Amino acid sequence: MSSSPEPSSSAPEPQDGAAGAGSPRRTVLSTRRLESYTDGVFAIAATLLVLNVSVNNLGAVTSNSDFVRQLTDQAPSILNVVISFLLLSLLWLIHVRQFEYIPRVDTTIVWLNNFRLLGVVLVPFTTSLNDEFNRFLLGRTLLPVNFFVILLLSTWQWFHASSPRRHLVQGASAAAVHNARVGSVSALAQSFGVVLLATMVGSAAFLLFALDPLISVLLRRTGVLRPAPDAVAG
Amino acid sequence: MSSSPEPSSSAPEPQDGAAGAGSPRRTVLSTRRLESYTDGVFAIAATLLVLNVSVNNLGAVTSNSDFVRQLTDQAPSILNVVISFLLLSLLWLIHVRQFEYIPRVDTTIVWLNNFRLLGVVLVPFTTSLNDEFNRFLLGRTLLPVNFFVILLLSTWQWFHASSPRRHLVQGASAAAVHNARVGSVSALAQSFGVVLLATMVGSAAFLLFALDPLISVLLRRTGVLRPAPDAVAG
Amino acid sequence: MSSSPEPSSSAPEPQDGAAGAGSPRRTVLSTRRLESYTDGVFAIAATLLVLNVSVNNLGAVTSNSDFVRQLTDQAPSILNVVISFLLLSLLWLIHVRQFEYIPRVDTTIVWLNNFRLLGVVLVPFTTSLNDEFNRFLLGRTLLPVNFFVILLLSTWQWFHASSPRRHLVQGASAAAVHNARVGSVSALAQSFGVVLLATMVGSAAFLLFALDPLISVLLRRTGVLRPAPDAVAG
Amino acid sequence: MSSSPEPSSSAPEPQDGAAGAGSPRRTVLSTRRLESYTDGVFAIAATLLVLNVSVNNLGAVTSNSDFVRQLTDQAPSILNVVISFLLLSLLWLIHVRQFEYIPRVDTTIVWLNNFRLLGVVLVPFTTSLNDEFNRFLLGRTLLPVNFFVILLLSTWQWFHASSPRRHLVQGASAAAVHNARVGSVSALAQSFGVVLLATMVGSAAFLLFALDPLISVLLRRTGVLRPAPDAVAG
Repeated sequence: MSSSPEPSSSAPEPQDGAAGAGSPRRTVLSTRRLESYTDGVFAIAATLLVLNVSVNNLGAVTSNSDFVRQLTDQAPSILNVVISFLLLSLLWLIHVRQFEYIPRVDTTIVWLNNFRLLGVVLVPFTTSLNDEFNRFLLGRTLLPVNFFVILLLSTWQWFHASSPRRHLVQGASAAAVHNARVGSVSALAQSFGVVLLATMVGSAAFLLFALDPLISVLLRRTGVLRPAPDAVAG
Repeated sequence: MSSSPEPSSSAPEPQDGAAGAGSPRRTVLSTRRLESYTDGVFAIAATLLVLNVSVNNLGAVTSNSDFVRQLTDQAPSILNVVISFLLLSLLWLIHVRQFEYIPRVDTTIVWLNNFRLLGVVLVPFTTSLNDEFNRFLLGRTLLPVNFFVILLLSTWQWFHASSPRRHLVQGASAAAVHNARVGSVSALAQSFGVVLLATMVGSAAFLLFALDPLISVLLRRTGVLRPAPDAVAG
Repeated sequence: MSSSPEPSSSAPEPQDGAAGAGSPRRTVLSTRRLESYTDGVFAIAATLLVLNVSVNNLGAVTSNSDFVRQLTDQAPSILNVVISFLLLSLLWLIHVRQFEYIPRVDTTIVWLNNFRLLGVVLVPFTTSLNDEFNRFLLGRTLLPVNFFVILLLSTWQWFHASSPRRHLVQGASAAAVHNARVGSVSALAQSFGVVLLATMVGSAAFLLFALDPLISVLLRRTGVLRPAPDAVAG
Repeated sequence: MSSSPEPSSSAPEPQDGAAGAGSPRRTVLSTRRLESYTDGVFAIAATLLVLNVSVNNLGAVTSNSDFVRQLTDQAPSILNVVISFLLLSLLWLIHVRQFEYIPRVDTTIVWLNNFRLLGVVLVPFTTSLNDEFNRFLLGRTLLPVNFFVILLLSTWQWFHASSPRRHLVQGASAAAVHNARVGSVSALAQSFGVVLLATMVGSAAFLLFALDPLISVLLRRTGVLRPAPDAVAG
């Protein structure tokens, strides 16, 4: 809408129903339903994960201690579900942060989002592969690869949306948009590290994300991340 | 609301809670909840698709190469799920575009929408039929038929909503509404072509949709699609 | 909010975040999340219905005609799912119409809504009972009973909300509120008739609802339904 | 936003898209999507509960009385599902009440919410454990423990959000915020009592919550709960 080449730092304009006059060739939609569909898909994928732990996995139980032992045997499966749930939570949070400043989307963003959601709905499947076949190379690698692909689409989507000539990001400062791009690439690189590490150690590789605060400090010290009055995460 | 016989090109009025004064006999509801229910149904149908690929389809795995081979055997099922997911994404996008300009709905639209959603919830079932029985005529045809019926209801709904005397479409130019009608019928015709082709080649028939940009160019050259400052898709 | 004993016919006030000053003892919440939760539950229940028809019900298929025959054998199950889907659609539409004019809810409405949703989530179960055990009295009666109980709670909720001293219904005329009460009781009575009839004829009893337009005309002729500029459905 | 050390009692400001100027270091997001995701997860968890009762649990049925007997045998399972549904409804209502006055959230609240939702998605699993293994100590205790942990996170979240220096709760009086803290701790204490009692009597322990109105009266008489013009529940 604004004719400025930089993303406008003003508040998003009230949604006006008509396609943006500044972009006559692209269909422009309000973000609301993309968000609503995305929240639904994340909510269902996160809940379906739990179908991986089921009472059907328990055999005949004869005593209190036998029951405790059988539940303990399920502990790795439950841990697996918890890890995937937290990863989905993280991916959802990244999505929320990105779209906080994107009041309108074009068709490219919608399709990148659909592929991103395709990655999300596959998480319960790759989680169960990881659970049952982690002694095989592919078994322990497909969940990290799934996660990497989602982050790749997420980064792509953010670079597309935050391109100054598209005017899709509104209400965020230029420094915040830049930092979100850096953060996005940093998360993608960490995720690639997780894939490599997972070929050897499996799910434990996700602990690599614990280094994220350290990496952020490093990026801030070296000036790659700029000081900004607000924050977006790409 | 406007007394003009053409769809008003002004922004949609703020939703006022009361039924439209211009339509005393019909119950008129705001679109918000129809959209929320629709997004939920699409999100669940898209996620349930993935239950078609399950670790339960894998047998005892003895080695890395055996695991790779078993996953490769699942590839057609996974491709099937991906195709249906993308088709659902397309149907969802068509719905979003239509209702972007429909701030209020009447009872007819609600029921057309409910039948449309009935088609959507059947997609996981017709997808699994397609997956397991594509060597039979009906097995490879029911998914395209399902898709065709949804598009038929979608077109019907758009023609009903965009009828000038109902004043339900607001904020779109007359040319955009016309183009959306043309696009809607064009998609329906392509979808009918997919049904015919699928009787012979199965799911590969959906590749026919790749011709859509070509058809659009043709329709624009011949003047069937009109120049419009904005875009809606029916 | 208004001190008038009749439901105010003005547009709903902008939601102000604070509990209503006119009701110091009751916690008053905005309706938005109740609607969002309700839409989610309806969307999932409607989609889960389809799990009743599954490729797992099909045996080994040897030819095209064998496949057609096996699918035809599934026709009653599919019809059953379609009926329950349409009933859920109707119940959802009734909910949408009621809450179109209820911008704020009290705790009683929330709990009546929760019990109503409990009825909704049981529909896939009573549908499958109806499908497999309709040769037994209870098998063919429980789905109509389920539906009746939901309508009972729905009617109760509307009478509670539309009580003039609670000021919860806003933006509807007194005549429309009255008509919605009449319509609500009429639907409940029809639903009771369906229960009685279903003990003999099973699901076909739901065709009784086809009489609804006739009953409406009768109620209008006899003056039980009053002329109103707008319409709500209870 | 306000510089007052007490939560402002004015209405929440219109959501302005930009991160709060008063909190330069924290990413601040609007509450809308957290609510939408939460409503989705609750809706799915509540609906999945019903998969615990299935026609598959019924054997071959020979007569009307045999069918009644088999359904009666399912009664404890159905009761179990109803109890968990009502508990989820209560937890959802607590969430709605809390966030009615929280227009913006920080990252800590988002993660506390994610862990809270992890607790919610585990409820169908702990419910089925409770259903099938309630003769074992752990079998009848894990559902109450699950519920207790969710309330613990809920209380933590409310104390974090309602801390005066964070300015996250808006539009509620100081007395209402105080009362919500008291109510939150009271519910947590009752829930701990349920865990202890459940080790002996199982699910019947949830009846302890029936004492809540009595406890509220007691807390009001002793001045722990203060008189307030509005009400929030923590």
